[in-house]
Amino acid sequence: MANSEVWLESLITATPQEGRALAIMMARKTIGAIQTDPEKRKQMRPEYADDTVQLTSSAQVVAIEFQTIAQANNYWKNEK
Amino acid sequence: MANSEVWLESLITATPQEGRALAIMMARKTIGAIQTDPEKRKQMRPEYADDTVQLTSSAQVVAIEFQTIAQANNYWKNEK
Amino acid sequence: MANSEVWLESLITATPQEGRALAIMMARKTIGAIQTDPEKRKQMRPEYADDTVQLTSSAQVVAIEFQTIAQANNYWKNEK
Amino acid sequence: MANSEVWLESLITATPQEGRALAIMMARKTIGAIQTDPEKRKQMRPEYADDTVQLTSSAQVVAIEFQTIAQANNYWKNEK
Amino acid sequence: MANSEVWLESLITATPQEGRALAIMMARKTIGAIQTDPEKRKQMRPEYADDTVQLTSSAQVVAIEFQTIAQANNYWKNEK
Amino acid sequence: MANSEVWLESLITATPQEGRALAIMMARKTIGAIQTDPEKRKQMRPEYADDTVQLTSSAQVVAIEFQTIAQANNYWKNEK
Repeated sequence: MANSEVWLESLITATPQEGRALAIMMARKTIGAIQTDPEKRKQMRPEYADDTVQLTSSAQVVAIEFQTIAQANNYWKNEK
Repeated sequence: MANSEVWLESLITATPQEGRALAIMMARKTIGAIQTDPEKRKQMRPEYADDTVQLTSSAQVVAIEFQTIAQANNYWKNEK
Repeated sequence: MANSEVWLESLITATPQEGRALAIMMARKTIGAIQTDPEKRKQMRPEYADDTVQLTSSAQVVAIEFQTIAQANNYWKNEK
Repeated sequence: MANSEVWLESLITATPQEGRALAIMMARKTIGAIQTDPEKRKQMRPEYADDTVQLTSSAQVVAIEFQTIAQANNYWKNEK
Repeated sequence: MANSEVWLESLITATPQEGRALAIMMARKTIGAIQTDPEKRKQMRPEYADDTVQLTSSAQVVAIEFQTIAQANNYWKNEK
Repeated sequence: MANSEVWLESLITATPQEGRALAIMMARKTIGAIQTDPEKRKQMRPEYADDTVQLTSSAQVVAIEFQTIAQANNYWKNEK
């Protein structure tokens, strides 16, 4: 927990769409926390984005992260 | 979050079926956010839709997204 | 959302077992929304139902859909 | 929904362990609803139970079903 | 439900860590309920524990079971 | 439950980001509880971190664990 970079200050976002962006960011940050070598992550990226199986699997992670974010924001029911 | 296109204004839909359509759209938009090249996505599509394993995997993503949408809409209990 | 066929009027069912039937239907309708060619879906079906990996994967989708339906019905606690 | 056999009268069970048994039953009934040929299901069974990947995948389905059942029973907090 | 051994008396545990242990136990008991032959389970074990794919898949089952247990225990908020 | 090391005292964390760190730790501890040989875990690690399929699968476990932690912390809504 002595990670110097603070990237997740809050789960609250202004709009649902910003919540989606946060969900994608959270999924990516997990990958970065497990595979810490940025060069390797770069090499992996094409492999990752060109494979439909992996794209769907990533979409599932994003869906779960978004569920948490949507609950935190009370589904943006009070937004205009 | 400087994405110019706003596609998710709200999680609220008039009916459960519109909620299903939104869940499918959300899953697709995630794919689009990871694989940003539309040409590649087009090539991937037949591969994707013809493989039962991947279809089931996609159905799982949609089920999770729909769970979030259904909660946001209080399961459409107040609708007629 | 201009889909002409309305197949999901409500998440409310009379009994838990009807909720299971709805969960299976929801999973199938998602497949139909992604693979829109009915001929291809027909060809896929044996492949699908004969493969235990895919059966288990489908059972997972149904479990998630049912979770949503059960919440919508307050777990049928008020039923007789 | 014209299925003659009623196997799911209620999500309420007397104990958590009976809830586990119900979760396993629900997972199995889904398989039966998709693969309706009992002979084929019988042939599949060894393949299914001898493969650790599939066992883990099944355990995941059971975990999700149990989550629903546990919520329905308010986690059996009022039981003795 | 005529299983003679009662192994799940309650979802309530004294601490979060005991909740983790229960989650792992629940996942294992499901495997045992599907593959009832203890000899076969023993043979499977090395295969299982040496394969990172399967380890991750098991970790997912445990995460879902723990979610249920944590809810049952109100996240151990009242504990000291 | 006679495990001597206490590593999970509480699900409460000061910030969302510490919640992410806890989620990753929980996922890792599960792996350690199943594959108890530290030498084997060490050998597995490169295999694990270099495979995008497994990275995504791990990200899914972390997403589920985080969901539980976020609920426990009421989504850190009261934090500054």
